[in-house]
Amino acid sequence: MNNNKTNNTNNNTNDSSNIKNTGCAGGKDVVVLAYSGGLDTSCILVWLIEQGYDVIAYVANIGQKDSFEELKFKALKLGAKKVIIDDVREKFLEDYVWYSIQSGALYEDRYHMGTSLARPCIAKGLLDAADVEGASHISHGATGKGNDQVRFELSAYSLKPDIKVIAPWRIEEFLERFNGRTDLFEYARQHSIPLPVTPKSPWSIDANLFHVSYEGGILEDPEVESPSDIFLLTKHPSAAPDQPCRLEITFLKGVPVKVKNVSTSEERESSLKLYEYINEMAMAHGVGRIDIVENRYIGMKSRGIYETPAGTVLYQAHLDLELLTLDREVRKIKRHLAAMFAEQVYQGYWHSPEAEYVRSCIRKSQDDVTGQVTVDLYKGQVYIIKRHSSRTLYNKELVSMDAKGDYDPQDAGGFIKIQALRLKEYRRQHSTTSATNK
Amino acid sequence: MNNNKTNNTNNNTNDSSNIKNTGCAGGKDVVVLAYSGGLDTSCILVWLIEQGYDVIAYVANIGQKDSFEELKFKALKLGAKKVIIDDVREKFLEDYVWYSIQSGALYEDRYHMGTSLARPCIAKGLLDAADVEGASHISHGATGKGNDQVRFELSAYSLKPDIKVIAPWRIEEFLERFNGRTDLFEYARQHSIPLPVTPKSPWSIDANLFHVSYEGGILEDPEVESPSDIFLLTKHPSAAPDQPCRLEITFLKGVPVKVKNVSTSEERESSLKLYEYINEMAMAHGVGRIDIVENRYIGMKSRGIYETPAGTVLYQAHLDLELLTLDREVRKIKRHLAAMFAEQVYQGYWHSPEAEYVRSCIRKSQDDVTGQVTVDLYKGQVYIIKRHSSRTLYNKELVSMDAKGDYDPQDAGGFIKIQALRLKEYRRQHSTTSATNK
Amino acid sequence: MNNNKTNNTNNNTNDSSNIKNTGCAGGKDVVVLAYSGGLDTSCILVWLIEQGYDVIAYVANIGQKDSFEELKFKALKLGAKKVIIDDVREKFLEDYVWYSIQSGALYEDRYHMGTSLARPCIAKGLLDAADVEGASHISHGATGKGNDQVRFELSAYSLKPDIKVIAPWRIEEFLERFNGRTDLFEYARQHSIPLPVTPKSPWSIDANLFHVSYEGGILEDPEVESPSDIFLLTKHPSAAPDQPCRLEITFLKGVPVKVKNVSTSEERESSLKLYEYINEMAMAHGVGRIDIVENRYIGMKSRGIYETPAGTVLYQAHLDLELLTLDREVRKIKRHLAAMFAEQVYQGYWHSPEAEYVRSCIRKSQDDVTGQVTVDLYKGQVYIIKRHSSRTLYNKELVSMDAKGDYDPQDAGGFIKIQALRLKEYRRQHSTTSATNK
Amino acid sequence: MNNNKTNNTNNNTNDSSNIKNTGCAGGKDVVVLAYSGGLDTSCILVWLIEQGYDVIAYVANIGQKDSFEELKFKALKLGAKKVIIDDVREKFLEDYVWYSIQSGALYEDRYHMGTSLARPCIAKGLLDAADVEGASHISHGATGKGNDQVRFELSAYSLKPDIKVIAPWRIEEFLERFNGRTDLFEYARQHSIPLPVTPKSPWSIDANLFHVSYEGGILEDPEVESPSDIFLLTKHPSAAPDQPCRLEITFLKGVPVKVKNVSTSEERESSLKLYEYINEMAMAHGVGRIDIVENRYIGMKSRGIYETPAGTVLYQAHLDLELLTLDREVRKIKRHLAAMFAEQVYQGYWHSPEAEYVRSCIRKSQDDVTGQVTVDLYKGQVYIIKRHSSRTLYNKELVSMDAKGDYDPQDAGGFIKIQALRLKEYRRQHSTTSATNK
Repeated sequence: MNNNKTNNTNNNTNDSSNIKNTGCAGGKDVVVLAYSGGLDTSCILVWLIEQGYDVIAYVANIGQKDSFEELKFKALKLGAKKVIIDDVREKFLEDYVWYSIQSGALYEDRYHMGTSLARPCIAKGLLDAADVEGASHISHGATGKGNDQVRFELSAYSLKPDIKVIAPWRIEEFLERFNGRTDLFEYARQHSIPLPVTPKSPWSIDANLFHVSYEGGILEDPEVESPSDIFLLTKHPSAAPDQPCRLEITFLKGVPVKVKNVSTSEERESSLKLYEYINEMAMAHGVGRIDIVENRYIGMKSRGIYETPAGTVLYQAHLDLELLTLDREVRKIKRHLAAMFAEQVYQGYWHSPEAEYVRSCIRKSQDDVTGQVTVDLYKGQVYIIKRHSSRTLYNKELVSMDAKGDYDPQDAGGFIKIQALRLKEYRRQHSTTSATNK
Repeated sequence: MNNNKTNNTNNNTNDSSNIKNTGCAGGKDVVVLAYSGGLDTSCILVWLIEQGYDVIAYVANIGQKDSFEELKFKALKLGAKKVIIDDVREKFLEDYVWYSIQSGALYEDRYHMGTSLARPCIAKGLLDAADVEGASHISHGATGKGNDQVRFELSAYSLKPDIKVIAPWRIEEFLERFNGRTDLFEYARQHSIPLPVTPKSPWSIDANLFHVSYEGGILEDPEVESPSDIFLLTKHPSAAPDQPCRLEITFLKGVPVKVKNVSTSEERESSLKLYEYINEMAMAHGVGRIDIVENRYIGMKSRGIYETPAGTVLYQAHLDLELLTLDREVRKIKRHLAAMFAEQVYQGYWHSPEAEYVRSCIRKSQDDVTGQVTVDLYKGQVYIIKRHSSRTLYNKELVSMDAKGDYDPQDAGGFIKIQALRLKEYRRQHSTTSATNK
Repeated sequence: MNNNKTNNTNNNTNDSSNIKNTGCAGGKDVVVLAYSGGLDTSCILVWLIEQGYDVIAYVANIGQKDSFEELKFKALKLGAKKVIIDDVREKFLEDYVWYSIQSGALYEDRYHMGTSLARPCIAKGLLDAADVEGASHISHGATGKGNDQVRFELSAYSLKPDIKVIAPWRIEEFLERFNGRTDLFEYARQHSIPLPVTPKSPWSIDANLFHVSYEGGILEDPEVESPSDIFLLTKHPSAAPDQPCRLEITFLKGVPVKVKNVSTSEERESSLKLYEYINEMAMAHGVGRIDIVENRYIGMKSRGIYETPAGTVLYQAHLDLELLTLDREVRKIKRHLAAMFAEQVYQGYWHSPEAEYVRSCIRKSQDDVTGQVTVDLYKGQVYIIKRHSSRTLYNKELVSMDAKGDYDPQDAGGFIKIQALRLKEYRRQHSTTSATNK
Repeated sequence: MNNNKTNNTNNNTNDSSNIKNTGCAGGKDVVVLAYSGGLDTSCILVWLIEQGYDVIAYVANIGQKDSFEELKFKALKLGAKKVIIDDVREKFLEDYVWYSIQSGALYEDRYHMGTSLARPCIAKGLLDAADVEGASHISHGATGKGNDQVRFELSAYSLKPDIKVIAPWRIEEFLERFNGRTDLFEYARQHSIPLPVTPKSPWSIDANLFHVSYEGGILEDPEVESPSDIFLLTKHPSAAPDQPCRLEITFLKGVPVKVKNVSTSEERESSLKLYEYINEMAMAHGVGRIDIVENRYIGMKSRGIYETPAGTVLYQAHLDLELLTLDREVRKIKRHLAAMFAEQVYQGYWHSPEAEYVRSCIRKSQDDVTGQVTVDLYKGQVYIIKRHSSRTLYNKELVSMDAKGDYDPQDAGGFIKIQALRLKEYRRQHSTTSATNK
């Protein structure tokens, strides 16, 4: 092992060259690794130790279905100095997902951004761990072609500008050693890394409380239909119940605070409980599946298949309540900010100044988005049934075809005439000029 | 009858006061009335004759299910000098609906604007008729609280700045005479206007090729669930077939040019035929129902229930193809223009300079939106299955997790570092200042 | 006098028909009139009394150069029940102008909106007076073709939805009586209204602390050069001193809090004092003159000539500080909001929900806009000399051509390569397809 | 010399590692170098030859004041296989600057983007030369911290996706060799590269037809006033004539086509001639100087001092004509596109699909921007005097305070009432709720 630690100590900006570490005076450098328990991050864990680091494995429980005790045991066995299991599920909902619901934002008009929202939440936990543990480095297993590397690292640099990031899938030495899955398997065997018992699915999966995504492998061809049994959460709509499920969802300032199953009168109130209940119902009724082509931040198009059960329901319900309670022009401005929010989230800028700014503006817009929306979930679809709000701007008397309300129809004549003024001027000019000098 | 025609001849800007007409030198003024055959416009027709006008009834066949021969007979019997039945169905599709599909625009994120798109199309026919017939006036039966009066009249003034508009539902004299439906019935009886044989539904309906809308009456309360049998076009999803219908839709520059039923191999190609075929399939599968609260242009909120069967399918399919074929940044700009398009259409500005400008920009963006999208229609929902384009920007090799393509993962490291530069500067400044003088 | 008060009590929406007033039970209705002391509002005052109202004259001291004691005496003599002289200069600066400086907004890229900002401030005072005095009506002398009627009345309805507005210049009866200035003079003579001692300038003037505007009359032709001696505040640049005036302006969160004359070491700190000092210097140096064509809200184009001395200086200085202290992306978002702010202000929506929302977002953006900017005023121009901020995001070492800073130039290579990815894909597709099937 | 050509032939994406070249089969690889004649690019020229390349020097005459014959002689003497002197001045104006004038765009509200506009024009010439010469590589002398590297290379990859770029100031080997100006001088002496006869100014200069920029060195501190004699083009305003220069500029579809000096009756018509004439006048009158802090694309703030004489005049004149001839709403949309244009140009995306799209939309908006604007240039400032257009939308009769025109003031009452509708609803809801459950 060489003794050159220039790259790590002097050159903050270089994340991809000589990676060998001999630590700081009197000890090794500490790296906190975002650990999933899978083959990739297990190999990275061992490899980092080989490079001379003390490795702390950080596992965020963000709602994925894992046995966290097993993960802990596994990481320790592989040589981790410490394993942190961090239950961030409530934080994820309250500090990330709720903002997304308030924003009503979809990336490129379709994607609820389930993965994008999780990354800055995990990164926050990772960086907090690095702080607590006095680690100078973090590491992750995200690939070099994806969005997640960007999301992790922009979060990291935003939160802790002097953090050092080890991204093995971008390091030449690592890439040469692990040139394909065979190499990973071989390395795992050599280092007693347990191999996955089930065969890897022919695509990549990312799961959290909010969604599951399916990408890569046989899904990479957007011209090929995806397997019908791909989804882990939602039932196929054809297997969903023949009776709709009717939910009444209560929002306070744009955030869901209660759900009531109208048929069964069941109610849930705390963030996690109400969320999981809506998710359960939405999964049973096949709600929230999409198959899309999207634009990655790094400039390539990819195909993703996503299921976002509760997210889809909450998006629809929130949108409906917003139209009832927000002034038209306020919502229009907020909608524009939401488009920025979507791009910021997708591209990894959650912890940036501009995203903090946009979120504060969006939150401000939600002061009146309070009330109940009733929805039916049925065979993959969400139907808005009715809505109620003490802060409604809907005035039944004013809009009624049968009542006058505080309204003089003659005003509309003046309104139209004034709006038409510039249209008439334009046409007059253009019929004149078109006849002559065009 | 007085002989004062000052209001009509000298005062172009006054559409709402003294309405009595004695015509121009040697004859009566001619008014072209947008005639639907219903009780309201029948009464208006007779009333306009009473005011001293020669009335020409203009009926646009825009896909509503009417007997146009009966309408013609009825209008003539009521005293119309002439009846024009104008089949605008293809124009409506090609010059209005196709633009909307290309734009991918929804008003307030939900409404396909089926009524909004029809109005400027009908207004164009109406104004063309006025030109041909040498009429100085047009009239319509739109209410004084709605969007349609604005759409009709802004179109009218845009197309023919010196046109005079008679909007009876904003004229005090007319409103005093027809203060409720009883007065209309009474007037109809007096003037041999045939009364509707079927009882009026407890809400108002507007139908065309693209959609049917339901508003007013018992629907005015947004807190009350709408009747389940309200929809005229679409089957209830629960009554839809248990087998999905798979369609392959071909677009050329963002416009649908062909549909193929993958199961039956049926194909349709001309605008009207392919549209009606998609509509038929979508109706059978319960696609396109919404129940929303929206913001009218004149500033009140209203509740509308809409069904837009083929429009919903085409919106989804077009969106999918756009993501495959358009550069990310081009689409982002186009999407912004589409938000303007939606507002322009909804608010009645179709024939304005800004809408013409935005449409030309949107059309320009569609040069590459060519290819096929395969969709399943099932129980009220549209599922994207796959897509293909000779102009795809999707590069399978580039995005592949298993191939390198023309891509060096180390570039992503530099990309992230540069993007992080200002984030780090911001944090450094803000951790400094927050500790001291904040 | 008739006893019919239907129009005033029952019909809140009709502001333009029968205006005769007999007051409420046991007394006359009270109207608060925005009174300027000029011929127009003096005639309106008397005319309102003739119509049966008790009139309270409200005069806002918003920085125009008037003798407010004379105005008071005059109004009382004309029959006003009461005269309110309201010094709103500080409110105008702190609650209106400072927002405008923070926003950095110009209407249509040029106009500092001196009149637009004053109207909602005056309207607020007027409505507060109506509240205090228990008045059911307000009145103003704005013309029927201008923006000010809109600004006054949208403010009024926003602040007090049930207020009744009397806008004489839109009332047929008033217009018939006062058909031209001769009628006003005649009426003035009949009612002992003092006639202006100086001949009216051949254009219309509006003055306040922030600006003076010149419109109408001989200025209505945009093809004719305006008189060189039109300006009341600023010296002609050619008559300005040959030595520049150097000011150091200190901002706190985007608001000017101090000005120092670098040559003389004079300092001013409170809002009004610092503002007036900058104004004085800017006037002496001929700063802030423009001659523009603008789009009125009601749809016509008009030509306006404006001088905004201190406003022009503060706009430039604030912009400079913003670029030093705000993150690029935050400023970009804020700039977009500022464009909305400009439109809202110009069009009279200051007291609307959307304007309140936008202002709160803009204010939020200014948290770091703190520091000093040094400017030279010279012959009509403002030159930025230098700037300083404790919250600067400018990093001399980072940007230096001679230092490395925390920067690896190789990162820029990766950055460029990744940004080029989609550009290359696009070109490849387009060189392929252009050769074949275009 | 080694024989390893892997880096150049196999690895298209790597621009910064092993640079040694042994050429293609039977010969050396050819690189076209953007050559300025200065010390840096002269050293690079020689260094590239040392690395084994055949070097073609490309010099764009874009209006900088150089002796192109001397440059040619010098480059050949240093070993260039060929020197291309490319007069792109007219192309620069007509294909780049005119678009900028039409757009009315300023980067961050101040910068006319003189350097940004030149880069894609030079890059186009460079890539065309590479095509003609069959060169596989290009090279440039832009630094690793600036915008120009991005502009050159994004242009290059957009125009020719398989081009290879050598950016010496990002190559470690080069940076180690040339670590400071002393090394450059030493290298120059060793290789008979003529040293600059005049001492280098303590800042960096970039000049073209449109502007001169001053950056770096002693200007890097934004808190220090810049030297008063820094500007090469413009006279100091205090040295400018005491008489203004009055120009009448004629635009056709947003592009200047003629300038007339009103005092002297001199006229110029072709692009280059009229541009140079306006430039000459503007320089004489000290027009177009700014001192700003701006945000570089790579994320750092820098201070730049610029002079853009004719550009400043044309910006103001075009803006004035646009307000006269464009519909308000069209201009508003176009203005939004112009903000995108500014960012695209500044950040180097001229040849991207989105910039091509935006330019086509902006150009479309200019169909009516035809007419004359008269301006005075005086002591550093541009004053708009008057304007005329056959396509004006200004209607003197309509706007006149003394004429009625086709306008009924009562319409304005209806307009205001309708616009106030939602404002009143909002206030009613909010005064209700604020009293109770807020």
